[in-house]
Amino acid sequence: MNGAEALVTVMVRSGVELCLANPGTSEMQLVAAVDKIPGLRPVLALYEGVVTGAADGYARLAGRPACTLLHLGPGLANGVANLHNARKANSPVINVVGDHATYHLGFDAPLTSDIEGIARPVSRWVRTSSDAASLAADGVQAVAAAGRLPGGVTTLIVPADAAWSELPADYALPPALPPVAPPAVSAEHIATVAAAIRAARKPMLLLGGEALVGEALLNAGRIAAGAGMRVHAETFNRRIERGAGRVALVPLPYRGEAALELTAGVDLMVLVGAQRPVAFFAYPEKPSVLVPPGCTVLPLAGPQDDVPAALAALADALSARAQQPLLQAAQRPDLVPGPLSTLAIAVVVARHIPEHAVVVDESVTGSLPAQQMSSGSAPHDYLQLCGGAIGNGLPLAVGAALAAPGRKVICLEGDGSAMYTVQALWTMAREHLDIITIVYANRSYAILNFEFDRVGGGAQGPKARSMLDLGDPVLDWVSLARGMGVNAGRATTVSELDALLGVMCREPGPHLVEAVFG
Amino acid sequence: MNGAEALVTVMVRSGVELCLANPGTSEMQLVAAVDKIPGLRPVLALYEGVVTGAADGYARLAGRPACTLLHLGPGLANGVANLHNARKANSPVINVVGDHATYHLGFDAPLTSDIEGIARPVSRWVRTSSDAASLAADGVQAVAAAGRLPGGVTTLIVPADAAWSELPADYALPPALPPVAPPAVSAEHIATVAAAIRAARKPMLLLGGEALVGEALLNAGRIAAGAGMRVHAETFNRRIERGAGRVALVPLPYRGEAALELTAGVDLMVLVGAQRPVAFFAYPEKPSVLVPPGCTVLPLAGPQDDVPAALAALADALSARAQQPLLQAAQRPDLVPGPLSTLAIAVVVARHIPEHAVVVDESVTGSLPAQQMSSGSAPHDYLQLCGGAIGNGLPLAVGAALAAPGRKVICLEGDGSAMYTVQALWTMAREHLDIITIVYANRSYAILNFEFDRVGGGAQGPKARSMLDLGDPVLDWVSLARGMGVNAGRATTVSELDALLGVMCREPGPHLVEAVFG
Repeated sequence: MNGAEALVTVMVRSGVELCLANPGTSEMQLVAAVDKIPGLRPVLALYEGVVTGAADGYARLAGRPACTLLHLGPGLANGVANLHNARKANSPVINVVGDHATYHLGFDAPLTSDIEGIARPVSRWVRTSSDAASLAADGVQAVAAAGRLPGGVTTLIVPADAAWSELPADYALPPALPPVAPPAVSAEHIATVAAAIRAARKPMLLLGGEALVGEALLNAGRIAAGAGMRVHAETFNRRIERGAGRVALVPLPYRGEAALELTAGVDLMVLVGAQRPVAFFAYPEKPSVLVPPGCTVLPLAGPQDDVPAALAALADALSARAQQPLLQAAQRPDLVPGPLSTLAIAVVVARHIPEHAVVVDESVTGSLPAQQMSSGSAPHDYLQLCGGAIGNGLPLAVGAALAAPGRKVICLEGDGSAMYTVQALWTMAREHLDIITIVYANRSYAILNFEFDRVGGGAQGPKARSMLDLGDPVLDWVSLARGMGVNAGRATTVSELDALLGVMCREPGPHLVEAVFG
Repeated sequence: MNGAEALVTVMVRSGVELCLANPGTSEMQLVAAVDKIPGLRPVLALYEGVVTGAADGYARLAGRPACTLLHLGPGLANGVANLHNARKANSPVINVVGDHATYHLGFDAPLTSDIEGIARPVSRWVRTSSDAASLAADGVQAVAAAGRLPGGVTTLIVPADAAWSELPADYALPPALPPVAPPAVSAEHIATVAAAIRAARKPMLLLGGEALVGEALLNAGRIAAGAGMRVHAETFNRRIERGAGRVALVPLPYRGEAALELTAGVDLMVLVGAQRPVAFFAYPEKPSVLVPPGCTVLPLAGPQDDVPAALAALADALSARAQQPLLQAAQRPDLVPGPLSTLAIAVVVARHIPEHAVVVDESVTGSLPAQQMSSGSAPHDYLQLCGGAIGNGLPLAVGAALAAPGRKVICLEGDGSAMYTVQALWTMAREHLDIITIVYANRSYAILNFEFDRVGGGAQGPKARSMLDLGDPVLDWVSLARGMGVNAGRATTVSELDALLGVMCREPGPHLVEAVFG
């Protein structure tokens, strides 16, 4: 057994089942080990941003990490933006990055780079294995560190000679580590929060992370109903269970002014797996912290804590366990024939979301209507971009589809955003993933035209427009999708989009619709 | 005047003419400043790897840096792989990266990241401006530091409030800095090298960087002819002037064994703007340093020195200034009808290279025949991938075309490599760049199949093959190109490729040929 085989063996024993890969020469021993050791499914992507974004999506649905396989510093760097997003989503991801043989590093060959330096800004744990014998032990640590709540990104750097060197005959594989239970929130703190809620005039729960799924979400709904308090989610969330029959929940709006309007008068904001709300960007003369004046912010449990247990305990403390939460009624918006718009697309999509679908939303300026229109659609999971680095959506859809076979994935994508990791379409085709991608083809970085104005950019001249407009030449998404083996169609009206989605929802496999508007 | 306007003004006064951009909200003030201040041409790319690779290509042809405009840490990270390549090519590049307003950073908004940490592994100079008044002064330093020989990457981080804040009425713009002359190699060292060459049995010049163009290259050829010594280039070069009438020159082969075979018996290797040759990767039981046994390695001048002056002085010291260098004769390989192969593509391309074309080569396994067949083509510049991070070629072509209007750019691209920064095709179309891209569609990471074997990976099972093969689904490059507005055709035979290139060489503007083989 060589170092690479030992590493792959302990990864499999630690519960890692998926290897999202874009390897190069320095990873060939790891490729050979994945080939030889059963248990790790390799999935190739043609760009590393697809690899890391898919690992994020997989973790959100599977509840456990995939590993990546990346080619030295530049390969890792290509995945950093989506690792940033994964980090902000608290998604566990284990990067396995090859490096030159240890003795080769001093020669400054072309691909020599500071891999640890590239990894550190997005990784909670970084280690370069020293030799074959330490590789598996480091791998066990990398898996454990990624899984510790809240999930995080770990990066294990594998020198080529550590991978290819044979282990001694008496080498014993290290055991997998059991998961570490998150710290429990104290009964005293639960009582404090319960008392504060009782004493508040207009209290509110702000949910994030684990509070947005399963029994935790139901308990939040029970607390809200029992204490007569409102409940919101953070603006951008890793995964919300929503739709008909789920706890009715409105995320805080993206625009700070709108968020403050929504929470006006709230005197107690209880954070549950959530951060204190802050503005996405700073703007001249506008506040950074989005907490209404005079409001106390009180964390119940942070993302590192046992959030479900804390919500259950708080529900008990407030005698709310028997309450019926306010559940969303089933409702579908009416189809209004006409040209497409963000609202019109949202209406059509909301009517087609199949039961237990996964909706990935990176539609940017399309996101607010998409959420509003689909609140009463068939129950589904909703995945959002958590780190603000666009180019997350298509890869998230790949990862979600790999984690949840049998569930339809609907990916709402801005045309500008989609271009960052457009290579994801190829992996959708290669793996026959059941994904419908809807590209919002407004042929503009529409959000930036909005933001240009908000930061006080003034009137746009031709040079400014040239940096925000995508219309010349027009991107032909049907050609792009077909070029990567994905079946595609174009819609410019509500009825065309409705017809296309009808067909695509019935046919499994990858599809793309270019929804032209604007 | 605000901070952003001051920065743009000094950049223009420092000689920066091109801004390769993919901005976001935190850069909107900089967009507004580029819009308002004359002198900086903005060119939008839909992915940051295109931005930074184009900046590399531009610097290689223009001999001066472009600036980039990138969106916080994730935007910069997306450009890091091609900044790594630029760094290895000694190309000057000035990154301008927006950040949150200083007072907003502590709130951990979604896009908050360690931008300096992301910049450092690829930048020789990194600075975060503290306020509006320091922005222009920092910009002047960023330009100067990028231009210092050998050229390098600098990164200036611009907090949004530094960009938007108004400068005081008495604010004076800092002056541009004059370029710093590189250190001259001492007469004593020139004499030492000349004596060593005279004393050597089989001496050799190894050229890199500035030694491969203009009068420096001619002097290297004169020295070689006068001293009866061989002359080679490094394996991967930022820019070689080659073809008919140019100094005949063979780069060292990629395969270490072949490089050692070529230099067997050499007892003196004089480095001129070049590094000591080392293997691209380490392989079990193979040497890292590619210097023949008993050979002395003697640097004449490093990339940081005045290489042209050192070569002129050495030519004088060896009384070789009047020598006629061995120049390459014009010759075109004969067309052999039949199916395409790396050799067949190389033959057809070599026959079509127009006078003073720029050839960008990222054809990977196609590179050796491409070089061999084109050695006697019409005189042209040859640009290679210097840092080994594939995805450099299409952006290099964009940058070269922007730097050298009126010259045809021929881009030789592997299909695997092309996918990393495929978004470059859109910028080619948007800017009507005169580029012919030839995609080597062998539907495989062919180099990795070769390398898998070399590192001793053994027989490939289905999982290993699935990580190296691009054939399922087949990438349709004609659709991909048309999807981004680039005229495209497909060739499977020599005569089809010959006909397509004939048409495309006559028509200005962007074209793509999918050359199918394998």
